[in-house]
Amino acid sequence: MEVDYSKIKVVGFDADDTLWVNETYFRESEHEFARLLSAYETENKIDQELFKKEIDNLDIYGYGIKGFMLSMIETAIELSNGRVDSNTLTKILDIGKDMIRKPVEVLDGVESVLKELSGKYRLILLTKGDLLDQERKLEKSGLSEYFHHIEVLSDKKEDNYKNLLEHLEIQCEEFLMIGNSLKSDVLPIINIGAKAIHVPFHTTWAHEMVHDDDDNGGYKTIDNISEVLKLL
Amino acid sequence: MEVDYSKIKVVGFDADDTLWVNETYFRESEHEFARLLSAYETENKIDQELFKKEIDNLDIYGYGIKGFMLSMIETAIELSNGRVDSNTLTKILDIGKDMIRKPVEVLDGVESVLKELSGKYRLILLTKGDLLDQERKLEKSGLSEYFHHIEVLSDKKEDNYKNLLEHLEIQCEEFLMIGNSLKSDVLPIINIGAKAIHVPFHTTWAHEMVHDDDDNGGYKTIDNISEVLKLL
Repeated sequence: MEVDYSKIKVVGFDADDTLWVNETYFRESEHEFARLLSAYETENKIDQELFKKEIDNLDIYGYGIKGFMLSMIETAIELSNGRVDSNTLTKILDIGKDMIRKPVEVLDGVESVLKELSGKYRLILLTKGDLLDQERKLEKSGLSEYFHHIEVLSDKKEDNYKNLLEHLEIQCEEFLMIGNSLKSDVLPIINIGAKAIHVPFHTTWAHEMVHDDDDNGGYKTIDNISEVLKLL
Repeated sequence: MEVDYSKIKVVGFDADDTLWVNETYFRESEHEFARLLSAYETENKIDQELFKKEIDNLDIYGYGIKGFMLSMIETAIELSNGRVDSNTLTKILDIGKDMIRKPVEVLDGVESVLKELSGKYRLILLTKGDLLDQERKLEKSGLSEYFHHIEVLSDKKEDNYKNLLEHLEIQCEEFLMIGNSLKSDVLPIINIGAKAIHVPFHTTWAHEMVHDDDDNGGYKTIDNISEVLKLL
């Protein structure tokens, strides 16, 4: 199936793991967290408990590093049956602060794509992270000049996208989303009648990649963001 | 000085302490926090240290309850010289979780103002809090139907407002901001050539109120948000 991009006026980019590295830092932090608590449990068990806590808290904390920090603190207290010392808790807070302060590693090909597209389309950064974190990363990345503005969504479900397009006064068929997450950046977008391009991040996710056009899905999957330029 | 509101097309409302009670809950939480740490310090000293910590962390955490929670944890560890027990830390986390789950107390007169204005202007909710918190409060408040959408700013300084109006494609003279904070909702707005109405929240702030038109400032201060209807 050929996808027709001729009506596109606005292109939304996911930020984390689409424009720059992010998930890798969470994996490193989880590893560091497990190391700090290694007296109490195996790394595997600690990973599982932290993940469970994050999911339990997602409803109240939402996405982002601060919620991750609070979930680490809570997991550390529970896993250790309250025996964790305050020195360790301080180190856990430092893990989070270090994440917030990390330099931004822009992914290959991103800048040339933004440069090329920014002349032809209105580009927006579309994230469900924390606004302050994302503004900081955008500034550090040196990519700000290419974006019209940042939109933060509390979640990336169909209704969130619908409300966004309504408030931006954009028709669904005029909108293209580019991102690494099928669940957040691609499927809800297709379902509301807009366009999406999937750029998986982790090389280990390669098994899941669909290289040919997906006849049912109506979106393209590409290896590297540079290929966007051949499609548009 | 008469302020001319005839060009206004879009009205921005601050959320916390303009539409609903907020600051009061922070004061209650600080009091509860001091009570939990009363073995280590006086309430006055604890308040001061927490405030200092919040200001130190503002740069990395931004505004909102999660950052407040992380600052409480850090303050508790430092104030107690690491002696604070994990049971107390869990109670501190609970203070924050309770704040997030609090019912929303809409301020007097708010709903009728929104009802009246929503037919004539595009209303937006304009906050520097956490998007998820604010969406949740807006839903609980029952006021969602009156707003076109929510805008979250990482801060409320002149540049943040300028970028916002640019992205909404609104001229400065078409924009009116209504809020309780002179520093965040009024002065930066006046400085960029838009209009502002100041509605102070705390009765204890009455001393600072300017009831007559402020000839230099170019904004109005009103006692109750209902008075907006007489001005517009």
